[in-house]
Amino acid sequence: MDWSQEISLAAGRIAAHIQRTPVMETRGFGLSYPVSLKLEHMQHTGSFKARGAFNTLLSEPVPEAGIVAASGGNHGAAVAFAAHQLGLKARVYVPEIAGPAKVALIRSTGAELEVVPGAYANALDQARAYETATGAMQVHAYDAAATVAGQGTCFVEWDEQGLDADTMLIAVGGGGLISGALAWYGGAKRIIAVEPETSCALHSALAAGQPVDVDVSGVAANALGARKIGEICFGLAQDHATSCQSVTVSDAAIVDAQSKLWRERRLLVEPAGATALAALTSGVYTPEPGERVAVLLCGGNIAPDPLG
Amino acid sequence: MDWSQEISLAAGRIAAHIQRTPVMETRGFGLSYPVSLKLEHMQHTGSFKARGAFNTLLSEPVPEAGIVAASGGNHGAAVAFAAHQLGLKARVYVPEIAGPAKVALIRSTGAELEVVPGAYANALDQARAYETATGAMQVHAYDAAATVAGQGTCFVEWDEQGLDADTMLIAVGGGGLISGALAWYGGAKRIIAVEPETSCALHSALAAGQPVDVDVSGVAANALGARKIGEICFGLAQDHATSCQSVTVSDAAIVDAQSKLWRERRLLVEPAGATALAALTSGVYTPEPGERVAVLLCGGNIAPDPLG
Repeated sequence: MDWSQEISLAAGRIAAHIQRTPVMETRGFGLSYPVSLKLEHMQHTGSFKARGAFNTLLSEPVPEAGIVAASGGNHGAAVAFAAHQLGLKARVYVPEIAGPAKVALIRSTGAELEVVPGAYANALDQARAYETATGAMQVHAYDAAATVAGQGTCFVEWDEQGLDADTMLIAVGGGGLISGALAWYGGAKRIIAVEPETSCALHSALAAGQPVDVDVSGVAANALGARKIGEICFGLAQDHATSCQSVTVSDAAIVDAQSKLWRERRLLVEPAGATALAALTSGVYTPEPGERVAVLLCGGNIAPDPLG
Repeated sequence: MDWSQEISLAAGRIAAHIQRTPVMETRGFGLSYPVSLKLEHMQHTGSFKARGAFNTLLSEPVPEAGIVAASGGNHGAAVAFAAHQLGLKARVYVPEIAGPAKVALIRSTGAELEVVPGAYANALDQARAYETATGAMQVHAYDAAATVAGQGTCFVEWDEQGLDADTMLIAVGGGGLISGALAWYGGAKRIIAVEPETSCALHSALAAGQPVDVDVSGVAANALGARKIGEICFGLAQDHATSCQSVTVSDAAIVDAQSKLWRERRLLVEPAGATALAALTSGVYTPEPGERVAVLLCGGNIAPDPLG
């Protein structure tokens, strides 16, 4: 796979559909060095996921029946939004446990939405039944080339905005976003993969030498709680083992970083969105003197909704 | 007054102390045209006020007794923060009615803080008594040249960031920020002064031909509720009568714009911070075809605190 080409093509393909998100350099958060931030939580539907969703729907033939997803999370909202914007039919089955904020988010995309009693598995059953009955397409959340190439456009954009960093910290769930970073930068930057201690599919896979099932829990689990790391991510992390480092942070560190982002910079993000910064603020990762660090804020869909 | 020179000097003077705030171009909010935003609510203490505060404290000799303010708002927090950062003593008298969020904000600056029972006038009495007893300096919130020159640095920065706009919309309270815009741009841009219908000191002054006392109320009153427009602002608005236009918006329009900023772009601002955008989203101001518009988001100190 020529990732550079795939990601460059994706950037052109989705440019008219996504939000170019702002960047800033800032000091604070109790750190003695400056940090470059990309405010990707300001992307459509509040996370980077819209990039992969648009790239997928614009690169593959979508059946007339449109797309279907079972999700109460950021991926589901992004796919539903992208489908609606492109005039494609979208149907989303949301587990009851997703809660009112995420339901409202997905509903706001204009997708057909059905809240399914019970947990995720029940919603997935209904989505599969719909897929079978109608021929609608399901879009993978992270372990597909078109998804990874779409997420990689974050970094094309950040480079164009003048990013000057040696090291980039990125939160990891199923690995779509960090795959985009590893695929785009190759070994040219140090990439720090940051996972919650209680949802660390990549960390566990690297320890085991292969993707393994993990238990997931904690404050960021509804966004980062993948049960198994994607094969694409695992492969890229192995290919770039010398420049990619895996660390984990506690829930307390995540909540502290989330609080600092709001109190010092009026950046309101969900716990997953503060997870990468937490590796710095907790001291789990400490840059060398002069090492320039960059942190991507990946999601802003907090609950409860602050404007109710 | 050579405003261009004063503002340029201010920009250099405060550069090391303030946050360079991000800018973005975006579509949405129910509008058919793009809007350039400056996210100045991400400034230190959550509003542009830190610029004027730093410029004042760095341009004038500050007595050893430091500074004193009576304020439960953004100005008080900014002055207290600037003083503390510069190693100056700061004492702030906060009226009880300011509420816990603003009290916490001011306390977080490191200033000495005293919550005074009753309303603003009681806090002001105590601040004046302290000023008399100690020789501490009070800093004016908007009607002083150093304050206006400091706020004007917003626009120096925005120009440096590549602003491309014909028209700029700015929320007005006492007039410090819009004075900075009028002073920096002269007649080179159309400047739209946006006030809440229920707190419109500039609009009333322009109608009366001179600054007049107004009643203030409504959702943005704790930030924009000046009882009388500043003389500097009134003078600049008259000097640039052909390029400066005054409009007012309803509380409902402000709340709607605030909601759109959060729901579509994960920008959480206080009502004052959404007031300028409200002129567009409510249709009170409609640009001509091709007219490029810019909106400054001036404050982010919402209550209640979303992270409690």
